[in-house]
Amino acid sequence: MNILIKIAYDGTNYFGWQKQKYEKNTIQEKIENAFFKLLNKNISIRGASRTDSGVHSLGQRALIKDDIVIPINKIPFALNSVLPSDIVVTDAEYVNDDFHPQYSVIKKTYEYKILNDKFRNPMLRNYSEFVYSYLDIEKMQEASKYFIGTHDFKAFCSSGGNSKTTIRTIFDLTIERNNNIINIKVSGNGFLYNMVRIIVGTLIYVGENKIMPSDISNIILSKDRAKAGKTVSPKGLTLVDIYY
Amino acid sequence: MNILIKIAYDGTNYFGWQKQKYEKNTIQEKIENAFFKLLNKNISIRGASRTDSGVHSLGQRALIKDDIVIPINKIPFALNSVLPSDIVVTDAEYVNDDFHPQYSVIKKTYEYKILNDKFRNPMLRNYSEFVYSYLDIEKMQEASKYFIGTHDFKAFCSSGGNSKTTIRTIFDLTIERNNNIINIKVSGNGFLYNMVRIIVGTLIYVGENKIMPSDISNIILSKDRAKAGKTVSPKGLTLVDIYY
Repeated sequence: MNILIKIAYDGTNYFGWQKQKYEKNTIQEKIENAFFKLLNKNISIRGASRTDSGVHSLGQRALIKDDIVIPINKIPFALNSVLPSDIVVTDAEYVNDDFHPQYSVIKKTYEYKILNDKFRNPMLRNYSEFVYSYLDIEKMQEASKYFIGTHDFKAFCSSGGNSKTTIRTIFDLTIERNNNIINIKVSGNGFLYNMVRIIVGTLIYVGENKIMPSDISNIILSKDRAKAGKTVSPKGLTLVDIYY
Repeated sequence: MNILIKIAYDGTNYFGWQKQKYEKNTIQEKIENAFFKLLNKNISIRGASRTDSGVHSLGQRALIKDDIVIPINKIPFALNSVLPSDIVVTDAEYVNDDFHPQYSVIKKTYEYKILNDKFRNPMLRNYSEFVYSYLDIEKMQEASKYFIGTHDFKAFCSSGGNSKTTIRTIFDLTIERNNNIINIKVSGNGFLYNMVRIIVGTLIYVGENKIMPSDISNIILSKDRAKAGKTVSPKGLTLVDIYY
């Protein structure tokens, strides 16, 4: 049977999720090493999302197509006993043979945290984007509505991605302020390369009154990356959950 | 004129606030070094609280009895430009000559964060105590009332402190659960060595039903450290603010 594991990690000290040829310090590599320590056998895993260096996770998934002798409910505890403290496996379940960690996705949810204050917060330095100028949350909320729905998000995609189409559906985009912290939560059927970070960068322009909420429509229609906001830091981004 | 600065820091990578003879990696030392970089002059500062290694701050204060040529409102920005990213000065103000960073304190507020979940959260590994067993928050809230007021807190004091008296007044102690995170906020006129961490350890015993809320009274009256709970990790503790 195939096994799907759920993984939380602090991305600060890693070169992202995906295993690389010349870079050993990736989250995928750490988990495969953990399996080797437990089973003395090479197990390869396939992640659902290629999170970038610095991006965090509470809900990454990875598929294992191999026989694991550890009882399914003990797999998280066994892996955690040999993983570093910034990677935690929080679930393991059997999935069908036709399950695909990427193509079977129905919905993904990301959260982006902005610290909107006069001074940085040392405890949030690896978990937020710092914005000094006061952001108009109501304008940002108004702007968020223009992203909802099925659009060609080419203007919100960095080069370097390898998607066949730049059309995606955003189900939900909420923005909340809690004192000096702004949380942006976005759910969609999938996201292009850097898409969430460019959406947030554009929303920050709205909050700074550099552009109007209604400008979002034209930016989407332009399909021009140069029209959208900057790509904000990966530090503020967390992959919250994936729904199959 | 004397100057009081306010300092936020992530205590994870430091041996606490207080400068030490053979240990250079303290927060006080880093700030004194920052002054030296800016002014090419030795400035010594006196902290309000000796936070331990691993304890964080949003509201530590330190007094400078020296002439600083930098305009008062520019001092935080000047210091932050030469401080590491896990120490942030957030305010500077003039105080009277008779001001004392410790003796002039009216109230101190600390916050303690507990992660009460099945699995650890990698993002909170340096900022919370992890408790696996489900904590009964209502029992803990009931217990918290027994701490309020002026008591001899000898049972809640580790050896190694140097206070003349173990009598302290707790003004307020609130406990809130937000999903899997429990925040304990406590304000008092002063705290003994490890007092907050022992109070939290004792409240965890209450939440685990190892002792009853009303047992707190007898523990206080006993003045016996062995009767109280364990000293929880410094990681969950933040000095939130100091009132003068």
